[in-house]
Amino acid sequence: MENFIFNIPTRAYFGKGQIENLASGIKEFGGSRVLLAYGGGSIKSNGIYQAVIDQLNGAGIFYVELSGIKPNPPIEDVYEGIRLMKENHLDFIVAVGGGSALDAAKAMAAGAKYDGDVFDLISSKVAVSDAAPLATVLTMAGTGSEMDMGGVITVGENHKKYAILHPLLNPKFSILDPEYTYTVPEHHTMAGCSDILSHLMEQYLRPDVGVDVPDRMNEGVMKAVLDNAPKLRHNPNNYNARANIMWASSMALAGFQFMMGKQFGAFPVHSLGHELSSLNDMTHGITLALITPAWMRFTLISAPQYTSMFARFARNVFGVIETNDAKAALVGIEELESFYQSIGMPSRMRDAGVEKSQLEYLAEKATEFGDIGTMSPINKAQALEIYTMAW
Amino acid sequence: MENFIFNIPTRAYFGKGQIENLASGIKEFGGSRVLLAYGGGSIKSNGIYQAVIDQLNGAGIFYVELSGIKPNPPIEDVYEGIRLMKENHLDFIVAVGGGSALDAAKAMAAGAKYDGDVFDLISSKVAVSDAAPLATVLTMAGTGSEMDMGGVITVGENHKKYAILHPLLNPKFSILDPEYTYTVPEHHTMAGCSDILSHLMEQYLRPDVGVDVPDRMNEGVMKAVLDNAPKLRHNPNNYNARANIMWASSMALAGFQFMMGKQFGAFPVHSLGHELSSLNDMTHGITLALITPAWMRFTLISAPQYTSMFARFARNVFGVIETNDAKAALVGIEELESFYQSIGMPSRMRDAGVEKSQLEYLAEKATEFGDIGTMSPINKAQALEIYTMAW
Repeated sequence: MENFIFNIPTRAYFGKGQIENLASGIKEFGGSRVLLAYGGGSIKSNGIYQAVIDQLNGAGIFYVELSGIKPNPPIEDVYEGIRLMKENHLDFIVAVGGGSALDAAKAMAAGAKYDGDVFDLISSKVAVSDAAPLATVLTMAGTGSEMDMGGVITVGENHKKYAILHPLLNPKFSILDPEYTYTVPEHHTMAGCSDILSHLMEQYLRPDVGVDVPDRMNEGVMKAVLDNAPKLRHNPNNYNARANIMWASSMALAGFQFMMGKQFGAFPVHSLGHELSSLNDMTHGITLALITPAWMRFTLISAPQYTSMFARFARNVFGVIETNDAKAALVGIEELESFYQSIGMPSRMRDAGVEKSQLEYLAEKATEFGDIGTMSPINKAQALEIYTMAW
Repeated sequence: MENFIFNIPTRAYFGKGQIENLASGIKEFGGSRVLLAYGGGSIKSNGIYQAVIDQLNGAGIFYVELSGIKPNPPIEDVYEGIRLMKENHLDFIVAVGGGSALDAAKAMAAGAKYDGDVFDLISSKVAVSDAAPLATVLTMAGTGSEMDMGGVITVGENHKKYAILHPLLNPKFSILDPEYTYTVPEHHTMAGCSDILSHLMEQYLRPDVGVDVPDRMNEGVMKAVLDNAPKLRHNPNNYNARANIMWASSMALAGFQFMMGKQFGAFPVHSLGHELSSLNDMTHGITLALITPAWMRFTLISAPQYTSMFARFARNVFGVIETNDAKAALVGIEELESFYQSIGMPSRMRDAGVEKSQLEYLAEKATEFGDIGTMSPINKAQALEIYTMAW
């Protein structure tokens, strides 16, 4: 068990109508000239844009808009935000949207306070040392970006994904109104649930032992996702279910799970999934549902010393009753696959438009910076094995 | 489901040797002249006192000592601390100890910034509006005071307990070194575990519905307590078990459980238990073990509409397999009683030195400021009923 520092710098305003705290929050954290960053036009049709603008205008806060931030946000969108901030001497960012707008805003926050190319920070060549304060208004649950310190940015022709990570990038506060997610289509709602579950599993299934409190809390959040995601499939306006999924998103990455020796480190399924997204813009949460079961089966074979951990996952999260660890572990994976099917996730990469001939390229790219494994090594050969199992 | 604001202002340094962050932390939060507040002499025999002093001296931080803070801390100790702070122009408090030293320090922190009698603040006649910054070095797990905003102070000849509560009283940071609890005697270690469990149950068993994420996290922390407490009975130096219990203490009251409609409110078992402590200085955690099962049986009878909540508790925390809710609920209470027995808690008030003739007085005092119930009313008659069941 390792030492840790527990510190959750982001404040959350959770519930109906919490947008009313936006302007006062901006002022509390010293904002006077705001970059208002968002993605597509959906926030204009569902009233969220107007609510944000009303807050800013009502408080006389100057703002400049950056619209059209793309999914899997490209560095070009980040450059544009930084340009607007520097040219207009903006001192605060309000990001409205899901993970893409929020992640891009984090890179903008760091880049606005950096004299060089923000790619230095995104690629970890230079450490983040300052950042503009950021607030978020969440419109889609999943990435956890509303409560965490990281963002994922897509760079270059190959759509390589880089994670920019620093506590200075934690939002000062986030507005979490479950009603703001009512209009998220079922497909994206469920992909978000898959993303939340993956964040929890990637922290739970690690070579750390004896850390019962965070692991037990993690199991609890996983069960809440399993219980609430299906409720939203045919009833997208179920407030309690939307609220539980939104709060699960925040709790999954707010830092509780990294405690007591659950060290921050590689998220192998995310690494493998990012390459799938890079290849064909596949929705992030879907890539995770495709790869997780294969990664689990691969790990059970390549690192059998962790079988009991997968058995515990099966028993404590899915209620599997089976005394033999190896059998329990496999039943747990089947239960997970059933859950994915129940929320409409595709189960094979081949069904999701990936050609078998692409797998080697994916494995090459996923491991180009080295081993991405946690419980067992994952270099190119192992990555190819996992992709093949998932295909 | 109610709206809420999530904000955890206390930073925790958790693990072996984290005392090394004490001096830098004091300076970071503006402290230059410190009140060093602690209880009995145990911290001098186990080396913790020396480690604290070394930190202060090593950084050249001026300090004045207040030793001898008593269990169930009386307001007189608080007065003494405030006097020392005002006379010596102290600007920061370091509290070393368990809940008593920490709770007393919180009242001192508020009183040092208040011109009137601190009883005004303790009795909620006047709201806290300012407080000196506070850091804690925890030496016993249980009360959660190291991560929360409250303290309980004993006042007057009847030893009445008052809770002073305000976010300004959250410690700026807490040093949580599980090794610092190795010398806590078994009896007090187990009473601390009972206290932690009670904090979790008092938040879980409430008339709030649909709040799956915090309830599931709560269940997880409860299970971690059930698993780890018995490990410490005959092996007090089990680091992982000490660490899990210490972190469970902090997580139980850090504010996660109050979220999503788990509104902050009465803790009826604590209210009933405080009177037992007032009567004969009984250890707080023991009073909770004595009263909780009786309160549960009382509530099942008086508020049967919440039977399913107790059944869920039985199933999800104790793994009770019983489809009938009423039966499951009762089996869960029996499982809880078995747990208390397994960690050496007395099971009847009569065995803990309480006379039957005292019950009416206890019921009178527990409800003197009004109803203390949550799921069903608890005025004097109901309090007497619960005490009688527990006797």
